Amino acid sequence: MKENKDICNAFEASEKVYAKGEIHPIRVGMRKVNLTDTVEDGVSRPNGAVLLYDTSGFYTDPNVDISIPKGLPRFRDEWISKRDDLEKLSEYSSKYSNERLKDETLKDLRFQIDHLPYKAKPGKEITQMALAKKGIITPEMEYVAIRENQLIEKSGIETYITPEFVRQEVAAGRAVIPANPNHPEAEPMIIGTKFLVKINTNIGNSALSSDIEKEVEKSVWSCRWGGDTLMDLSTGKHIHETREWIIRNCPVPMGTVPIYQALEKVNGVAENLNWEVYKDTLIEQCEQGVDYFTIHAGLLQKHIPLAAKRMTGIVSRGGSIMAKWMKENKTENFLYTRFEDICKILAQYDVAVSLGDGLRPGSIHDANDEAQFGELETLGELTKIAWKHNVQVIIEGPGHVPMHKIKENMDRQIEVCHAAPFYTLGPLTTDIAPGYDHITSAIGAAMIGWYGTAMLCYVTPKEHLGLPNKEDVRNGIMAYKIAAHAADIAKGHPSAMVRDNALSTARFEFRWKDQFNLSIDPERAREYYGAEKIHGTPFCTMCGPNFCAMRISREVSDKGKIE
Amino acid sequence: MKENKDICNAFEASEKVYAKGEIHPIRVGMRKVNLTDTVEDGVSRPNGAVLLYDTSGFYTDPNVDISIPKGLPRFRDEWISKRDDLEKLSEYSSKYSNERLKDETLKDLRFQIDHLPYKAKPGKEITQMALAKKGIITPEMEYVAIRENQLIEKSGIETYITPEFVRQEVAAGRAVIPANPNHPEAEPMIIGTKFLVKINTNIGNSALSSDIEKEVEKSVWSCRWGGDTLMDLSTGKHIHETREWIIRNCPVPMGTVPIYQALEKVNGVAENLNWEVYKDTLIEQCEQGVDYFTIHAGLLQKHIPLAAKRMTGIVSRGGSIMAKWMKENKTENFLYTRFEDICKILAQYDVAVSLGDGLRPGSIHDANDEAQFGELETLGELTKIAWKHNVQVIIEGPGHVPMHKIKENMDRQIEVCHAAPFYTLGPLTTDIAPGYDHITSAIGAAMIGWYGTAMLCYVTPKEHLGLPNKEDVRNGIMAYKIAAHAADIAKGHPSAMVRDNALSTARFEFRWKDQFNLSIDPERAREYYGAEKIHGTPFCTMCGPNFCAMRISREVSDKGKIE
Repeated sequence: MKENKDICNAFEASEKVYAKGEIHPIRVGMRKVNLTDTVEDGVSRPNGAVLLYDTSGFYTDPNVDISIPKGLPRFRDEWISKRDDLEKLSEYSSKYSNERLKDETLKDLRFQIDHLPYKAKPGKEITQMALAKKGIITPEMEYVAIRENQLIEKSGIETYITPEFVRQEVAAGRAVIPANPNHPEAEPMIIGTKFLVKINTNIGNSALSSDIEKEVEKSVWSCRWGGDTLMDLSTGKHIHETREWIIRNCPVPMGTVPIYQALEKVNGVAENLNWEVYKDTLIEQCEQGVDYFTIHAGLLQKHIPLAAKRMTGIVSRGGSIMAKWMKENKTENFLYTRFEDICKILAQYDVAVSLGDGLRPGSIHDANDEAQFGELETLGELTKIAWKHNVQVIIEGPGHVPMHKIKENMDRQIEVCHAAPFYTLGPLTTDIAPGYDHITSAIGAAMIGWYGTAMLCYVTPKEHLGLPNKEDVRNGIMAYKIAAHAADIAKGHPSAMVRDNALSTARFEFRWKDQFNLSIDPERAREYYGAEKIHGTPFCTMCGPNFCAMRISREVSDKGKIE
Repeated sequence: MKENKDICNAFEASEKVYAKGEIHPIRVGMRKVNLTDTVEDGVSRPNGAVLLYDTSGFYTDPNVDISIPKGLPRFRDEWISKRDDLEKLSEYSSKYSNERLKDETLKDLRFQIDHLPYKAKPGKEITQMALAKKGIITPEMEYVAIRENQLIEKSGIETYITPEFVRQEVAAGRAVIPANPNHPEAEPMIIGTKFLVKINTNIGNSALSSDIEKEVEKSVWSCRWGGDTLMDLSTGKHIHETREWIIRNCPVPMGTVPIYQALEKVNGVAENLNWEVYKDTLIEQCEQGVDYFTIHAGLLQKHIPLAAKRMTGIVSRGGSIMAKWMKENKTENFLYTRFEDICKILAQYDVAVSLGDGLRPGSIHDANDEAQFGELETLGELTKIAWKHNVQVIIEGPGHVPMHKIKENMDRQIEVCHAAPFYTLGPLTTDIAPGYDHITSAIGAAMIGWYGTAMLCYVTPKEHLGLPNKEDVRNGIMAYKIAAHAADIAKGHPSAMVRDNALSTARFEFRWKDQFNLSIDPERAREYYGAEKIHGTPFCTMCGPNFCAMRISREVSDKGKIE
């Protein structure tokens, strides 16, 4: 695994700054963008700085040495090691993990681990939800409260996301903080409708394309570009080793779909899946540090005939695997029948469950149908079971949904899933644009985010066509940063417009550098503008000098001459 | 001007077919996509064909010889020459036109014109609106009725857009058919909330970048990619000659902002603009064949102080020019005071007026403010005046508007502008994404299209940064084809889902070629999938064989094995 220095460059005109906790000795990283002065009629006026929510982690802190082979600093270890409800195991609990660790042929491929896993002490309830219910404000809760408030404090609006407010939302199940103690490299973040809308990015190899280095590279870049969580959906070779590399270098919570790896373990024969293989896979991944699992426990035998009526059947990988398993074994989905056992495992590592929507619609035609809403009801039922075990719950959603059916979908989810956070893939608002599905879905994502969805799972331009490369990941993320931010504005999140206002003011004052530095992708904005023009001119090639409305508008309103 | 054969290639597996009129001897071009057979368990089942709305004109008809230097066939001349309310002039009426025609230095630059302009005979009311009010169904009305219905007929849904329905909508001002007799190369299309949502593309040079050939190339490609109308926003050199080349090769209605050229004629000094220069420019462009004019007649002196309160002032080029003019001349906007005179000219050539929103908000902060809504009211007042002269009217709209304010904007427009078609630029739903504003705005465009906007003005990724190149035009168009189509589905247009259903069925049956050919950009879809994989495999690199949900789903539902 090579070093990659590109990913360690700080953003232009930006500093990594840290806010300190008041309850706990924590430091919350954020990006401070220093603005240039406004020079009007020869007089300079300073514009100060804007604080931005920052998902890039230590990569953009010049004071931290970054080494992919060594992994990120395990900064949360300091908090975790002080806890008296966790114990450090003397070895890994999963049979498979131990086999892989002993396999000499994997030596060159393997990330060199020098730590052992944490697990709940017997009888201890260790999840963020369990602690929240007991009235405890954890370091993670204070961390996310500070993180969500950074823009607000800057803008002088009264703080409203307090650590206590976070605790209440987590206790009620309306928000989730995915924070497996075995992923101490990750900065805590919160997923809930009353917080900033988050985005998830998917990476991962497939049987047809596998390269650990490329997957790690994509995952690190996805955080730099703004991904709030990351799912490793690998289905190809060396899933275990690929995941270890990614987690150890990942500054955001990570999710997986454990049934994918379980299926590889039974050589791709869905009907051969069984509880023992699945259970060992869960434990393997819990101890590696996965923060949330997608589990397709809501797709039942009774739903399969409903899916058969559809135009595009089942389009969820996990859903199709479980449907095949039920059909061949003529018995109920074992993820459903074993759900309490699953929760008991997850509760010991504070891994959140993301209840998969195996029946998400794969076409506009199938949106909001009986199959989809039937499964959603089961997800609501499972939510209550998970909460009983203090397992944090996220609900996954579609898929393909036309605009006029999105609100109905959101409202139904809130109702039947008891306000557990919704996490949707898009939705795509038309089927006719393969190659542009980051856009078909950004439309639906922005709307459902406004209506209440807490996290948006990105879609890249390659959706339906192939595995995304790094540039596809970038385009998918940017489309989703836009959707999430547009939703934050529409929801009225008090901090959302700070960045828009700062950027628009810079634009109107021809402070081009500030406009670029405040934008979601400074490199692209700079590239499109043309590097040679950055210094100076109060117009761009779009209109030229005589037709620059903003220049003329300044004259009309007697604003000073911009220099 | 070189020949360009690329633009004449038919789309793969597609034929140009023509539907005949019943009232008039007209032929309406459309694209027929021939589908491959479904081969299931060794048995073939034919899938027929899908008819698509086609904006590419004769370029994709192999039976028509295309030559950019000669221009497109003037097919509508046959209808126009039969009319007894139009006369062919013996020379151009505009002083400027005649100067340019006589200028020997422009000889090599000029498109070789061999026709003379049409104009209304004295006392004749010739516009589509005038004729509609008299109860006349014109060839243009029958043409658009057939065009809008092509998908519906295929899908077996009862036709609801009849020529008589079109006539009623045009008579009431709720729909516009831009159809200057001097642009007989253009295929008629309709802009109205009860019809398919249309998209406009902008091209044009600026003082910093001028090249006639490139502008013609972009304009022809924009039609091939799906632009329903085209605006030439040139502000650079040789505006007159550039426009002639574009119109003569443009199969869709074309719009301009005449004040841009008028400003060039007074050397860029806004305060020197005057009615004589503007009037001659209107006549010049009417006789060249421009189909609609953006006129910023609604921005009044009383609005300027409202704009001065804004974060980003005036961001419309036309708006800023008129504001400057009013301020320097200390008098009311002459486009407003001369509006009846303007209408009298436009009525003689059936040029529609697109009432410009000089005060469209340029930032989220300024959305739906007093300035914007104040001007909108004036646009409503002007609508009534134009209708009195039977001039067809479109109303232009923003701009930057957050999602939660879009509906209010649409509702206000319908109310104060008497249901004249709304034509919006986006709106952009956040300010923070320069480089990606085709996406920030596609979100707003899809929503406002659903709420009732009749035509969406595209935004390219280069918005705010520079002039778009051909690839930017493509990306802008695709984002807007998506927005318009998503809106058609959400509005419940009976034909909209035919294409989605055909594509999704093809996708579920692994008919890759059909999926590509039915998509909005077959070339891109094919490129992303990887050309070498097109033949065969029932999975793609995204999931590989074991994880292909659709393949597994087919097995579960006992559907046949796809070959």
